[in-house]
Amino acid sequence: MKVSAIITLKKDVLDPQGKVIHKTLDGMGFKDVNEVRQGKYFEIDVKENDPKKAQKIVEDMCNKLLANLVIENYKIIEIQ
Amino acid sequence: MKVSAIITLKKDVLDPQGKVIHKTLDGMGFKDVNEVRQGKYFEIDVKENDPKKAQKIVEDMCNKLLANLVIENYKIIEIQ
Repeated sequence: MKVSAIITLKKDVLDPQGKVIHKTLDGMGFKDVNEVRQGKYFEIDVKENDPKKAQKIVEDMCNKLLANLVIENYKIIEIQ
Repeated sequence: MKVSAIITLKKDVLDPQGKVIHKTLDGMGFKDVNEVRQGKYFEIDVKENDPKKAQKIVEDMCNKLLANLVIENYKIIEIQ
């Protein structure tokens, strides 16, 4: 199954990359932007046909490698 | 409205970063992985209360700045 996960910075953590994109968009004429936050996206194809088990495997990966839980959150957004 | 977009490499484009993560996961004991693809995630808060208009604005941003359409695809995944 393919499991999609998103990793984002926690709300109170500064996102300098998002700020730069915000400024760039502003310079390009996109004036009506309040905030831009950037994150990471992973699509992991695991050899597991049970969606719940596949989700658990990917959550385990996020906890152990993909996300830095001190400053980041992860969310499984799709399993297919 | 907050619009969430995902930018991924097109299917036939090599993803070296995803391969490295795949190998690292393998080394950590996650043996049942077929493939890992990495992408980018953006959460853009625009001053627009109409979801359709907000989506159009962010699609425009993806076309003009956020995505490299030669090698990447973008997808709006959430508007709230």
